[in-house]
Amino acid sequence: MASHRLRLGDLAERLGLGLEGDPDAVVSGVSGIEDATADDLVHVRSEVYARRLGECPARAVVAPAGVDVGARSALRSVDPGRDFYRAARIFVPEPMAAAGVHASAVVADDARIDPSAHVGAGCAVGSGAEVGPRSVLHPGVVLYDGARIGADCVLHARVVVAAGSVLGDRVVLQPGVVIGGSGFGYTGAEGGGLAKVPDVGRVWIGDDVEIGANSTIDRGTLRDTRIGAGTKIDNLVQIGHNCVLGERCVVVAQAGIAGSTVFGDGAVVMAQAGVTGHLRIGANAFIGPQAGVHRNLAEGERVIGTPQRTPREWRSESAALKRLPELLRRVRRLERAREDEAE
Amino acid sequence: MASHRLRLGDLAERLGLGLEGDPDAVVSGVSGIEDATADDLVHVRSEVYARRLGECPARAVVAPAGVDVGARSALRSVDPGRDFYRAARIFVPEPMAAAGVHASAVVADDARIDPSAHVGAGCAVGSGAEVGPRSVLHPGVVLYDGARIGADCVLHARVVVAAGSVLGDRVVLQPGVVIGGSGFGYTGAEGGGLAKVPDVGRVWIGDDVEIGANSTIDRGTLRDTRIGAGTKIDNLVQIGHNCVLGERCVVVAQAGIAGSTVFGDGAVVMAQAGVTGHLRIGANAFIGPQAGVHRNLAEGERVIGTPQRTPREWRSESAALKRLPELLRRVRRLERAREDEAE
Amino acid sequence: MASHRLRLGDLAERLGLGLEGDPDAVVSGVSGIEDATADDLVHVRSEVYARRLGECPARAVVAPAGVDVGARSALRSVDPGRDFYRAARIFVPEPMAAAGVHASAVVADDARIDPSAHVGAGCAVGSGAEVGPRSVLHPGVVLYDGARIGADCVLHARVVVAAGSVLGDRVVLQPGVVIGGSGFGYTGAEGGGLAKVPDVGRVWIGDDVEIGANSTIDRGTLRDTRIGAGTKIDNLVQIGHNCVLGERCVVVAQAGIAGSTVFGDGAVVMAQAGVTGHLRIGANAFIGPQAGVHRNLAEGERVIGTPQRTPREWRSESAALKRLPELLRRVRRLERAREDEAE
Repeated sequence: MASHRLRLGDLAERLGLGLEGDPDAVVSGVSGIEDATADDLVHVRSEVYARRLGECPARAVVAPAGVDVGARSALRSVDPGRDFYRAARIFVPEPMAAAGVHASAVVADDARIDPSAHVGAGCAVGSGAEVGPRSVLHPGVVLYDGARIGADCVLHARVVVAAGSVLGDRVVLQPGVVIGGSGFGYTGAEGGGLAKVPDVGRVWIGDDVEIGANSTIDRGTLRDTRIGAGTKIDNLVQIGHNCVLGERCVVVAQAGIAGSTVFGDGAVVMAQAGVTGHLRIGANAFIGPQAGVHRNLAEGERVIGTPQRTPREWRSESAALKRLPELLRRVRRLERAREDEAE
Repeated sequence: MASHRLRLGDLAERLGLGLEGDPDAVVSGVSGIEDATADDLVHVRSEVYARRLGECPARAVVAPAGVDVGARSALRSVDPGRDFYRAARIFVPEPMAAAGVHASAVVADDARIDPSAHVGAGCAVGSGAEVGPRSVLHPGVVLYDGARIGADCVLHARVVVAAGSVLGDRVVLQPGVVIGGSGFGYTGAEGGGLAKVPDVGRVWIGDDVEIGANSTIDRGTLRDTRIGAGTKIDNLVQIGHNCVLGERCVVVAQAGIAGSTVFGDGAVVMAQAGVTGHLRIGANAFIGPQAGVHRNLAEGERVIGTPQRTPREWRSESAALKRLPELLRRVRRLERAREDEAE
Repeated sequence: MASHRLRLGDLAERLGLGLEGDPDAVVSGVSGIEDATADDLVHVRSEVYARRLGECPARAVVAPAGVDVGARSALRSVDPGRDFYRAARIFVPEPMAAAGVHASAVVADDARIDPSAHVGAGCAVGSGAEVGPRSVLHPGVVLYDGARIGADCVLHARVVVAAGSVLGDRVVLQPGVVIGGSGFGYTGAEGGGLAKVPDVGRVWIGDDVEIGANSTIDRGTLRDTRIGAGTKIDNLVQIGHNCVLGERCVVVAQAGIAGSTVFGDGAVVMAQAGVTGHLRIGANAFIGPQAGVHRNLAEGERVIGTPQRTPREWRSESAALKRLPELLRRVRRLERAREDEAE
């Protein structure tokens, strides 16, 4: 997937990497090993991965020092994955959106849009809302009254940010994300049935947070729902009202966190896991895929299964469970033997 | 989070509550106990909760009669939660949307929009669609042909209501909800493969229903999919085609209900639970989080786990499961002992 | 739900079916047996189903040859389900959208929209994007730069197709679908934290694929994420980056597939199941509801449970699990008996 043509010498310089090979050779794209053409740059993380190069026609490889890449040129790196993806960003640059507000966007008179920001076709920006420098609103984004977007954010198509929510800098929201929907909180109504608890709180999102397509983060009831800086959230994730996620947490696709649960920094929630409300999850805790967490977790604690148990317990129980039908028969046999003796 | 300033005497009168304390004291917002300032109103549900007041500087508390709130003024209530949130609604009123159709909205000539309704920027309203008195369509809402919205509804940004769906009064749809997507129904096609079953049915939604962000309710095949009055549905929930939910049901985030299942009134489905198709779930049944329900449930029946079992069985089995690896060893020991004897 | 009035003789001819009964009788809609009026067409799949006809007033029935439908007229069919739904499509035709681009849509100068295509109100079509013959974009659809839509596709309201994604012919996307969101891939950043892996790959979708409301398909990292022809995906499904689904696969609501997993043709993933990344799932494999798949599956292999096991094992273990608390007591009793003997 070529886009530019770059001399290897120039590429090495831009990435700050040492080059072994021909500085005048040209590469024009990045690729996985199995799909590469001669013009592609590929990467290997170690000697073991380098064996996969085989007949790969790629002219150049990002590789750790000392790893044999055959007749190819090598860009030497202590972190080939990172540097390969830095190169990818050079070949396939993030599309730039021109500064300015599209004629079809509807922006309230008292909204403040930085002149360097981009507001795309059909966006709606409410009263008192703010969009910071260089931030991009793709088509169809809706900012309710008072929503505040920091600098260098990217809000993809059809993102909704509800009233009063606050985003830091460099926040990326994939298409369809809903920030600040009303929490699922009800009290008894006077005539019976349920009355909605009004939301006084907002959603507060730190710097460098990224949230995947169609995920939903509910606004807080009395305090803010908070997502700490550097936290990454995948697609179709639900974060309930009043939750507080620490910094650099990871929440994988379709996981759900019920209201008022608090996560320390660096906690990880794997795909389709569920965490009940009003819990405290320690820093760097790890919740496995499809787990159901019903109690607080200590710092660094690792759990899986429903209800949660240690990965070791879970594996041991899962293995034992397979032998359970047979165990039933074995116990019955022992009982019969005893009965026979007793006669 | 102050917004108004109100005399306690006036607030007590508006809420219809008895006041013990200074009617001329002023409060200007609501808060949880831990975040309160002197100007905030807080609430406690009982004597036990009142102990948490500690050094809380709040000037006034909604509390049951007789519960000691220290030197603070007390608004006496038989239901402090409900009355506190009624007060919150006074301090943080629901934003009002001006009547009228935004110039950027596209409304079919034969659609009927009540003059008191609000149709926001970029909405699209199809042929024959109707929007009732005082209903609000936030920016980007799409009503397909013939969709009918009752009175006092709120459709948040980017809601889609497909052809012919019918909403009652006071229905609230959070951003991104899809009402009336096509059901997942296929029959064999003539040349092999799958042919879509056309949807003749619609979605019918009763009064006072609320549905959370990015949830999806499929339209019926031959009959309508129906959501009974007063039912509350959380975010990212899937309701399959032909389902019938009774009145005042509760469906929590990321739960899914397969096609043609019928729920009695007051049934509860907790987060991430799944219910297979063509079942009958009795009134006031309770389905625990992450449960997988594969059979009909009786009125009031409570289940959890996959496949469903009683909460008591589930807890007992979960506890026993932890001892299973050890049990395997114990049975092996008994067998060895027998073998030794037999020799 | 009447829409047309058709003579049975004409209907039989249009469907290519034999008619037993009155060719001049008129039907005006389709219905399930329990809701039918005299003017409705109903269907029965077999003799067993025909017993449900009872007092059903419907004038005409699609039924297999030889099945007794009482005094009603019969359209004889070898596949009554399929032919009934073909008849439904005649009574309730797919609404036609007029060719042309709505005045409120924003289309890049160099986008290519076939003159027979429909681009609805408020759509945004980026630079270099293409929309093929007779394809329909409902209101609010966003095509990023270079997105390519084939012929006879239907993109429902608020669908987003990200940069460079390619759709075949007759693809149907329900409201809110996000094609080509960024994958959940990170590498270590230079200053610590996580740096986003850029997406060079796209999403490629084959002919006759259908995707349900608010589902998300991430774009590939270096290669394309691919969805094979004829595959049907339900609502709120997540497909991770670099996944390859074969032809005619079925993925039911709220299922999730992690990155880089490859499915053979005809594989089925039931509701709320999860499949971890980098696996190979054989053709025609079947993954039961709520399953958690952690290993490769062979062709035609059937699994359920977490971690995956055979349906037979799963049922047998689930049944045995119910007896586990009692088993613990029985083993304790055997042990006590031995201890007593040993004394």
